[in-house]
Amino acid sequence: MSIYSNTRPEVAASEAMTLPQRYYTDPAWFQREMEAIHFDMWLCAGRTDQIPNSGDFFTRQVGNANVIITRDEQGQVRAFHNVCRHRGTLLCNEHEGKFAGRIQCQYHAWTYKLDGTLANAPHMEKVQGFREADYPLNAVATGVWDGHIFINLAARPIPFSDHLAGLDKKFRPWRMEELKTVERRTYQLKANWKLIIQNYSECLHCPNVHPLLNKQSHYMSGDNEPPQPTYLGGRMDLREGVKSLTMDGTTLRCSLPGLSADDQRHVYYYCLLPNFFLNLHPDYMLTFTMWPRAADHTEVTCEWHFHPDEIKKHGFDPQDAVEFWEITNKQDWALSDMAQIGIASKGYQPGPYSNREELLLALDKFVLDRVERSKH
Amino acid sequence: MSIYSNTRPEVAASEAMTLPQRYYTDPAWFQREMEAIHFDMWLCAGRTDQIPNSGDFFTRQVGNANVIITRDEQGQVRAFHNVCRHRGTLLCNEHEGKFAGRIQCQYHAWTYKLDGTLANAPHMEKVQGFREADYPLNAVATGVWDGHIFINLAARPIPFSDHLAGLDKKFRPWRMEELKTVERRTYQLKANWKLIIQNYSECLHCPNVHPLLNKQSHYMSGDNEPPQPTYLGGRMDLREGVKSLTMDGTTLRCSLPGLSADDQRHVYYYCLLPNFFLNLHPDYMLTFTMWPRAADHTEVTCEWHFHPDEIKKHGFDPQDAVEFWEITNKQDWALSDMAQIGIASKGYQPGPYSNREELLLALDKFVLDRVERSKH
Amino acid sequence: MSIYSNTRPEVAASEAMTLPQRYYTDPAWFQREMEAIHFDMWLCAGRTDQIPNSGDFFTRQVGNANVIITRDEQGQVRAFHNVCRHRGTLLCNEHEGKFAGRIQCQYHAWTYKLDGTLANAPHMEKVQGFREADYPLNAVATGVWDGHIFINLAARPIPFSDHLAGLDKKFRPWRMEELKTVERRTYQLKANWKLIIQNYSECLHCPNVHPLLNKQSHYMSGDNEPPQPTYLGGRMDLREGVKSLTMDGTTLRCSLPGLSADDQRHVYYYCLLPNFFLNLHPDYMLTFTMWPRAADHTEVTCEWHFHPDEIKKHGFDPQDAVEFWEITNKQDWALSDMAQIGIASKGYQPGPYSNREELLLALDKFVLDRVERSKH
Repeated sequence: MSIYSNTRPEVAASEAMTLPQRYYTDPAWFQREMEAIHFDMWLCAGRTDQIPNSGDFFTRQVGNANVIITRDEQGQVRAFHNVCRHRGTLLCNEHEGKFAGRIQCQYHAWTYKLDGTLANAPHMEKVQGFREADYPLNAVATGVWDGHIFINLAARPIPFSDHLAGLDKKFRPWRMEELKTVERRTYQLKANWKLIIQNYSECLHCPNVHPLLNKQSHYMSGDNEPPQPTYLGGRMDLREGVKSLTMDGTTLRCSLPGLSADDQRHVYYYCLLPNFFLNLHPDYMLTFTMWPRAADHTEVTCEWHFHPDEIKKHGFDPQDAVEFWEITNKQDWALSDMAQIGIASKGYQPGPYSNREELLLALDKFVLDRVERSKH
Repeated sequence: MSIYSNTRPEVAASEAMTLPQRYYTDPAWFQREMEAIHFDMWLCAGRTDQIPNSGDFFTRQVGNANVIITRDEQGQVRAFHNVCRHRGTLLCNEHEGKFAGRIQCQYHAWTYKLDGTLANAPHMEKVQGFREADYPLNAVATGVWDGHIFINLAARPIPFSDHLAGLDKKFRPWRMEELKTVERRTYQLKANWKLIIQNYSECLHCPNVHPLLNKQSHYMSGDNEPPQPTYLGGRMDLREGVKSLTMDGTTLRCSLPGLSADDQRHVYYYCLLPNFFLNLHPDYMLTFTMWPRAADHTEVTCEWHFHPDEIKKHGFDPQDAVEFWEITNKQDWALSDMAQIGIASKGYQPGPYSNREELLLALDKFVLDRVERSKH
Repeated sequence: MSIYSNTRPEVAASEAMTLPQRYYTDPAWFQREMEAIHFDMWLCAGRTDQIPNSGDFFTRQVGNANVIITRDEQGQVRAFHNVCRHRGTLLCNEHEGKFAGRIQCQYHAWTYKLDGTLANAPHMEKVQGFREADYPLNAVATGVWDGHIFINLAARPIPFSDHLAGLDKKFRPWRMEELKTVERRTYQLKANWKLIIQNYSECLHCPNVHPLLNKQSHYMSGDNEPPQPTYLGGRMDLREGVKSLTMDGTTLRCSLPGLSADDQRHVYYYCLLPNFFLNLHPDYMLTFTMWPRAADHTEVTCEWHFHPDEIKKHGFDPQDAVEFWEITNKQDWALSDMAQIGIASKGYQPGPYSNREELLLALDKFVLDRVERSKH
């Protein structure tokens, strides 16, 4: 029995309505969401192949938190708040780079090891009770799943494996840890982060908005899992004759080595709440990480990852996949921005969801429940 | 006996003072004004000749409301909130255009007739209790006066004819419905909307600020009506030998066909509260619509309208009127912006009105009274 | 016995901590600081040689106050709120210039003498009880110290000499009133104003941040006065062979005429709270005035002043001093901006001051004390 079902139960118009305006526009509600969700859950930050060696780093902005993700001398992935423990100065203002063995504040040369411990704090000899051991960098929890680096800003994060909730087993055949990032695009959306997940979670808009996608994967072929506490996901069929989602539906690339014949006929779309989209194609992986900046502003980074055997082949060219999703992304972003404007306007009132928008209703409930619980 | 009088009664300095700072700077007060005034009164949105045919439309932003103004299949002017009843998406993001018979949301293809009724909502079959009749576009009231289109966002608008308060009879001789828009200019002012009405409502500043205007129409010739509940207005004399307000005071154009000899010697300046200025010259009509964007930001659209008989004459050239008012407008906008800066600064305190600034005092009272009443 | 001591007592890490985040980021706290400090204390506005003649003026923005600084017909320095007493219009929107004998509002021609009295208010004849004597420009207190113009926006300022607290006697030998401004640079910092004073008040960062400065003046040579109620200051030694702070440590300029041999071997760094830095070199004076614009934005104007005997010498070239401080300033501004970002981020928590950062701790106490007292 498959977990995927294309028959959604009926819903009642009176019960399945979109959220009121303020959930998309109110800065105070946005801040509550950040506290209850983004500062409390595991967030996908990037890929291990961005920091192959000790001292390599990149940074991520999560709300007002700036986080350094690096690899220590033992090769372990580490994350720290990008703030000196002396007078609070930002430690590095580059978005990526390489530390020369230590992390040194440019202001007064407080110096930290790559595991975060304070190694040297000049001119503190005459400060009574000062001990370097009391001032390590403030750590951020990390988890790694098949090459995906996750961070968690909570004081007591739930175990990372609980968050994955079995997706690690489910997607083992794709051997994602082997894949290499080939392209990265960053987009600034004038839309609330929830609207981007809602856009991702239904394909009823595909025939109008995405004629190219719909030509290669029928919009009614979507099979969703029942909504889960930490993720929303489903898969769609490739139409007969279509090998992958590319500009013309063909590809010269081999399928990823571990895939079954069935998996080669589907594209998987999973949203690991609250900030990660994972699109698994037969021959490549597409990932999105979403970074809310304000109630009406979200930064989205999209990356294309391929198998190294394909990358090194003569004539390897990812453009057929890059262009396909660049087109599709821009169609989605334009509609998400228009949704934000409409919902923010005086004429908006909650409207009825279709029974095929059940994942959107689940997202709304997830958000309300999370924020409600965080009060206590 | 004329309603116009050039003798203003004396006022007392202690009673006729400008408003305190916060009425021009406080975002919360601005929001209260929007609710009590702009969201409750009739606003001039444009002209019927902008939408001559069924399906033609333009949009207007009123506070956070975005409104579509269109003409339905029966030729009736209609206005709707520019928001889909499904998930709240903005229906059209062009400022003007033509609907192809229906208004269709680009996101999920919900489709509305030009009268606002929902004609088609795909994939809602399995939503219990869903009826298309329950989800028409949210309507906005409309009124048309001699070619001027008005909208009203209130739940229960006062009758449009009450708002006009006899101005329709008064200005019947101008036959404004015959006039055609020839030029449009939009200006962004860093000034509170009330300051623009105040600037409009007295000509004591004319000798300093508008030497060209003052040369053609003496600043002390202003005859005002007593202030009315929905409008503030008056008229000024053209100086001897001046035919109209143009760059050199002459014009090749005939006077508008219905005007008396007396009306051909005056320019009428009427502010229909809160967003419409109507300047009636012997040979053309000038209109301004004002759109408050923030306590310190107002968008103003100025249009020049002429009689079609003149427009079709060989050598018709509106530039003498366009340039005259472009110069005069920019002088007024610069002063309004400087008034905003000064009033917003720490050194401001209310100052005394002249007895010839009686319409400004009436405006202040109108605003305070409207906001006060809206509390109940 | 010198007031300068290079031995700072020990401090306790538990007692000498940086301030919590909100003191650097909260707009409401920033507003309270403005009220209790910048709107209550003497601020350095500029130099008398900017307005040598009657009617010359410049303006300064202090929070939401815009102030005209001018010189009246008797040659006295005067300051006024840049706001007309009629309807509140900004009187002049140039940052500097010359009034033609009177200050006239461009809107309705209310006209003031250079001492602020209202000389003419047209069309006010029929306003009962109106007297021109009741509507002078709102005055701002002024003080002049050796060419430095200070303003005070308080209703009842403390005496200017109390504010100087003896610095006028101390710095008499420099004869600052003789010096002429040769160069001015204005910088926009994305940093709280307190961070700029903190940066100025310790040289522990000099070896890392300012290698050029440290080469000419050893960072551990700093001798501070004990913190005073209205100023924080100290001096540093020039290294052997260094004549002044210039690109190469040499100078063709003579020392200022009144200086002792000892003063020729030091650079004095004084912060007259809250907005003035005075750097006295053997052969020139450097001044900074700081203008908080928001919790995270400060405008800084830096000026270089030289003795007129040097300026008129053939081959006078201030670039060795200008370039030295342009380099040093930019190093400081970059670190101050990074401090602001770090302190504003979620990972920040107060950290321990070194005992050599005693002036920073004094600044923090000054601010908290001032705001606390202002409540009553």
